[in-house]
Amino acid sequence: MDKEIKPCTTCPWREQLYRIIFESDSGAAKLFDLLLIVAISASVGVVMLDSIRLVREEWLLQLNALEWLFTLIFTLEYLARLLAVDRPLQYARSFFGIIDLLAILPTYFTAFIPATAYMVVIRLLRILRIFRILKLGAYIGEADIIIRSLQASRKKIEVFLCAVLTLVVIFGSLMYVIEGEDHGFTSIPRSVYWAIVTLTTVGYGDISPQTGLGQMLASIIMVCGFGIIAVPTGIVSAEMVRTASREESFIICANCHDRFHAPHASYCKSCGHKLE
Amino acid sequence: MDKEIKPCTTCPWREQLYRIIFESDSGAAKLFDLLLIVAISASVGVVMLDSIRLVREEWLLQLNALEWLFTLIFTLEYLARLLAVDRPLQYARSFFGIIDLLAILPTYFTAFIPATAYMVVIRLLRILRIFRILKLGAYIGEADIIIRSLQASRKKIEVFLCAVLTLVVIFGSLMYVIEGEDHGFTSIPRSVYWAIVTLTTVGYGDISPQTGLGQMLASIIMVCGFGIIAVPTGIVSAEMVRTASREESFIICANCHDRFHAPHASYCKSCGHKLE
Amino acid sequence: MDKEIKPCTTCPWREQLYRIIFESDSGAAKLFDLLLIVAISASVGVVMLDSIRLVREEWLLQLNALEWLFTLIFTLEYLARLLAVDRPLQYARSFFGIIDLLAILPTYFTAFIPATAYMVVIRLLRILRIFRILKLGAYIGEADIIIRSLQASRKKIEVFLCAVLTLVVIFGSLMYVIEGEDHGFTSIPRSVYWAIVTLTTVGYGDISPQTGLGQMLASIIMVCGFGIIAVPTGIVSAEMVRTASREESFIICANCHDRFHAPHASYCKSCGHKLE
Amino acid sequence: MDKEIKPCTTCPWREQLYRIIFESDSGAAKLFDLLLIVAISASVGVVMLDSIRLVREEWLLQLNALEWLFTLIFTLEYLARLLAVDRPLQYARSFFGIIDLLAILPTYFTAFIPATAYMVVIRLLRILRIFRILKLGAYIGEADIIIRSLQASRKKIEVFLCAVLTLVVIFGSLMYVIEGEDHGFTSIPRSVYWAIVTLTTVGYGDISPQTGLGQMLASIIMVCGFGIIAVPTGIVSAEMVRTASREESFIICANCHDRFHAPHASYCKSCGHKLE
Repeated sequence: MDKEIKPCTTCPWREQLYRIIFESDSGAAKLFDLLLIVAISASVGVVMLDSIRLVREEWLLQLNALEWLFTLIFTLEYLARLLAVDRPLQYARSFFGIIDLLAILPTYFTAFIPATAYMVVIRLLRILRIFRILKLGAYIGEADIIIRSLQASRKKIEVFLCAVLTLVVIFGSLMYVIEGEDHGFTSIPRSVYWAIVTLTTVGYGDISPQTGLGQMLASIIMVCGFGIIAVPTGIVSAEMVRTASREESFIICANCHDRFHAPHASYCKSCGHKLE
Repeated sequence: MDKEIKPCTTCPWREQLYRIIFESDSGAAKLFDLLLIVAISASVGVVMLDSIRLVREEWLLQLNALEWLFTLIFTLEYLARLLAVDRPLQYARSFFGIIDLLAILPTYFTAFIPATAYMVVIRLLRILRIFRILKLGAYIGEADIIIRSLQASRKKIEVFLCAVLTLVVIFGSLMYVIEGEDHGFTSIPRSVYWAIVTLTTVGYGDISPQTGLGQMLASIIMVCGFGIIAVPTGIVSAEMVRTASREESFIICANCHDRFHAPHASYCKSCGHKLE
Repeated sequence: MDKEIKPCTTCPWREQLYRIIFESDSGAAKLFDLLLIVAISASVGVVMLDSIRLVREEWLLQLNALEWLFTLIFTLEYLARLLAVDRPLQYARSFFGIIDLLAILPTYFTAFIPATAYMVVIRLLRILRIFRILKLGAYIGEADIIIRSLQASRKKIEVFLCAVLTLVVIFGSLMYVIEGEDHGFTSIPRSVYWAIVTLTTVGYGDISPQTGLGQMLASIIMVCGFGIIAVPTGIVSAEMVRTASREESFIICANCHDRFHAPHASYCKSCGHKLE
Repeated sequence: MDKEIKPCTTCPWREQLYRIIFESDSGAAKLFDLLLIVAISASVGVVMLDSIRLVREEWLLQLNALEWLFTLIFTLEYLARLLAVDRPLQYARSFFGIIDLLAILPTYFTAFIPATAYMVVIRLLRILRIFRILKLGAYIGEADIIIRSLQASRKKIEVFLCAVLTLVVIFGSLMYVIEGEDHGFTSIPRSVYWAIVTLTTVGYGDISPQTGLGQMLASIIMVCGFGIIAVPTGIVSAEMVRTASREESFIICANCHDRFHAPHASYCKSCGHKLE
């Protein structure tokens, strides 16, 4: 996403700014990342506290002050980012550019229109920025294995989700017909919601079958869910076993630089050159 | 199932119709598949909306019109299918032939007998048709691996389900004796239902043990369920690891007859001979 | 268990009886097994129906008649088993011998003492007999793999259960101190029960934390449970992958008849003889 | 942790005491371990029973007597430990030294200040001592594989938990905005708690969405949770498969240097050379 964003090359101090804000090699850059994580976490905490009625009534002024402080900090950061990059508009239109802007706008709006207070919640999206920072850090390799495993099994999971949706619609409709509106199954969408709650083994109990036939059908769905839960786990497990074993046999051919040979291979799989 | 259904060979335009409806190679056939998926999804949406009391009361006329529109579309499609195949009766008696018919009948019935309104729910079975279309498409390979894994572990899962059923009957009966009718365990079937709800970790909470002894037994069932959930997952995972690895690497070297080469290998890992 | 039970060898027709009742090779033996499964299932059904108040009040006579019928059948079967074996006392004291006796006694007792009606539930234990019959049948291999996998990972699962129990006692006690008796956590055993309900992701909701601190701790337990559920699954999966792959490389050495060689092995692992 | 704690070497009977208390080779040491496990389990039982109001009111004197008895036993054990080690202060400041002290202090305190009765719960931490004893025993190998597997996948699990936390904060805030305070989602922290309860498939049902939009979002979270539960399981499974297979087969042939032989192999699978 942000990959194409390049530093400003004409001005040395703006290039320096880019190094600190967008990269994480130098000490100053690492300090900036750390401070940003702290600021984002603290601002998330403030938004959360602000939503608790008792806390809001007691500490209204302090919370407002903190909200304006964080808005100021994030505004400065946003301006610094615009300044550091080669083409500011490109950054402003990138995924994180939009989130950075959305995180500061609500507070300014609420200064004029009090009704938009809910929009402060948008600020919470900023915690996605923490991921971006971590991605540059030590966890990149580990996150990569998980993401690659999920990507490799994406199609299998799509097929699986499609099957689950069909099951849930059919079972939900059946329960709507069997239990009827008197037992909480007031419409098909609500029955489908119940089927999802049951199949995923969440089981709130806000809607539950009352008739014998309904309970029998529910039992079948539950046992199905039991078997079905095994499928995505199996898919991801198999993929991870494969990814992990592939990683382990990471031998590079001296001739063609090809990687990922079979375990205990003696010859390169791509060019036939002898491996050491 | 529909495998044996062949196109009409005597009449060119009916053969052409078969190509469009039953296959998915040409552009027209793909457009037909897409339109059918849209029509089925939309008709499912209408049935769902129709089941919500508030929506039904507000938009009765519009929903009725849409229902008749989709019934008309599906009737035309049904007639086209009958026309396209070599032996119409064979199609009419096939699994999807029956579902296609069942999907259009309820609306015609309700025109005369209003009491059969519930039968519209049968139309939802048409979403199975979506699977049939997808099966011809890009997902066939992925779905195949899942289905083959499940088939290979079918017997293991049957043994497992048998064991679960026995456990559930014994634990359910014990709870019936321990907790009794006063705490919601009014009969053995109901207690068995509770045991299934607990063992599958759904846990509605509509029935839950009240006595100390009952809670102790329930704890044992839960910990059992914890261990038991591992078994189908283990079965499917093992099967998927095997299916995936078998698929990936069953290439035999013509020179040294060595097997299990790296994925996409061009040369034998043992003797360096070129693989075909 | 019943392994040591031998047929009566002195009397031919009793030996013949043993073949039919205890083995499952001949047609008569298979028919006997089938009839026994039907009879056991039907008698389980009768016990279940009998526990539903409405059914019992309506069909009292019929259910009683069926109960006596099945008691008669099982009594005859029990006598036949005693007759068929070499040493009747040995059978009578075996695990299944005791269950077979317990299944028929309650009905006779209730004829004299009506208060023991609950004892009919003991008959349900007879469904374990179905397992015994299946074990002789086609499912023996599949059940074997599951049982062997579970046995191989028995020690790991014991360590794991021990850790879970400790976690549950500590978390339960903490919640007892935090939430107190006013929010349903009336005693430590009850709090431990709640912790088990939560950790296993069952979540009845009959007891749930009300205070902010309690909900925070509960969240930690849930995320722990999320991670913990992965451990037994991982154990069983790993064991099944291993068992399955061992099975696959089922090559028998022509020299020493040793089995389970490494995949693509050229020499026997036990005697060094060349494998074909 | 306790690794560095050494026996007192100047005094033979204190060295002997160390052998009995801290090691588990001799018969006396094994007896001591067994008695300690029994004493800890029994004292945990007393604390639990004491928390049940009915039991406390009935058996107040007996429970108090038992509490003092166990306090005395643990005090003697604590003194013996102090005596046995080379440097008593080092033991007193170790993890288990602190727990051992905390387990006896509450009872002495309650003799003077009755309000600290809750502190008896601290004694429950002593069950961690049971682990320490088991660690020396037969289960060390098995526990090791589990711990090593978890350690090897620690970073992956951290990345995963970080992703789950972000999801839960975003989904929780969304539900707070959608459902509002009238439907139980009274603050963002409480909504996040609900999101955790849902994502981990616990599903108490104390808070559950009432509006159609809320139920739709909840359904998405549940299906996400379904997929997400597969990730840690996949991580641990893959790690266990790897650990198990590595352990089993890392034997190198002295003749052809081939690795990964069958378990318990005596001869090389590639050249037939005898393995050591």
